[in-house]
Amino acid sequence: MPRTKGDHEARRQDVSAAVWQVMATRGFAGLTLRAVAAELGATTGLLTHYFPTKRALVAYALDLLEQRTLSRPRRSAGRGPATLRDALLDILPLTPEATDSNRVWVSSWDAALSDPALSTDYARKYAEGRERLRARVVAAQERGELAPGDPAQVAAAAQSFALGLVVQALFDPVTFTPQRQVELLDDYLAALAAGAG
Amino acid sequence: MPRTKGDHEARRQDVSAAVWQVMATRGFAGLTLRAVAAELGATTGLLTHYFPTKRALVAYALDLLEQRTLSRPRRSAGRGPATLRDALLDILPLTPEATDSNRVWVSSWDAALSDPALSTDYARKYAEGRERLRARVVAAQERGELAPGDPAQVAAAAQSFALGLVVQALFDPVTFTPQRQVELLDDYLAALAAGAG
Repeated sequence: MPRTKGDHEARRQDVSAAVWQVMATRGFAGLTLRAVAAELGATTGLLTHYFPTKRALVAYALDLLEQRTLSRPRRSAGRGPATLRDALLDILPLTPEATDSNRVWVSSWDAALSDPALSTDYARKYAEGRERLRARVVAAQERGELAPGDPAQVAAAAQSFALGLVVQALFDPVTFTPQRQVELLDDYLAALAAGAG
Repeated sequence: MPRTKGDHEARRQDVSAAVWQVMATRGFAGLTLRAVAAELGATTGLLTHYFPTKRALVAYALDLLEQRTLSRPRRSAGRGPATLRDALLDILPLTPEATDSNRVWVSSWDAALSDPALSTDYARKYAEGRERLRARVVAAQERGELAPGDPAQVAAAAQSFALGLVVQALFDPVTFTPQRQVELLDDYLAALAAGAG
């Protein structure tokens, strides 16, 4: 019986899910054709149809990471009064899904830092992230919710704070429970609101 | 002519330097016997005397990272009035050496997160780091340099801020020059001093 387009698409989604699962548990260091095949319950041979080389698998994994990041639910994707707090909460590993996603991001830094093209691409992504935060800082300053100060500097600091908190929470989820992460963020924002930006 | 103990030690130091160099440029993902051999100008065969397996090489690299971190120069290793600012400056990639070291640390997170024993070890190290910062926060509060507030919370936030700034600076050293990193840190500390801890 010939395979239908639906079969093909279903299999593609299975492959994506298996790649994601391997990355979330073993990181990029553990991302091999063999591990994905085992996760999928398939042969390594079948996987080579999708990924002829390790490099192709890594490129696919990075694309998958970007797609999942772009399509994840956000607190303030709409038009309303998007706040700095919502944008920073969206970064943190407060749910199992956000934890997996952050785990994969942090894991990808090793590969990204040693590949000049990828490193440039990551720098651009983080710059775009800071620009989005900056717009929210400006809006908050206009509403009088944040003290005056260079909004680009505030955005860069806030992004640093959130990224570092991600790393701490991944290594020590018992200490950095979702509740504690939110408390730390709220203290941080309170300090920004109070004064020296 | 028989090899002397001095030869052996010199060779060990060459091997360490080569492993470090490979990690600093290619990360753990690029750490292979072949890469270390090429860096050393030796054969892969010679390297297998030192590292019979890839696992042995990674374990050695992690030890080397810890040794270099413990032995690096610090702004306030002495007994004097150690400040929170000095401790945080010690973390940041403000020199080429500190940049290499941070690059290797960030790169090691991938391997560390996917190995439960290593992950526990990293969590412990970061907890010790926070404890050292906490002691400095307490001292600064006693001197009236920092606003009152739970010192453990302030230390956790400061460590998050510094770690995230490390990551940003590694990906985008043009934007996050040493000068800008210090400005961001000083703004952060000014906000802490000003009020809401």
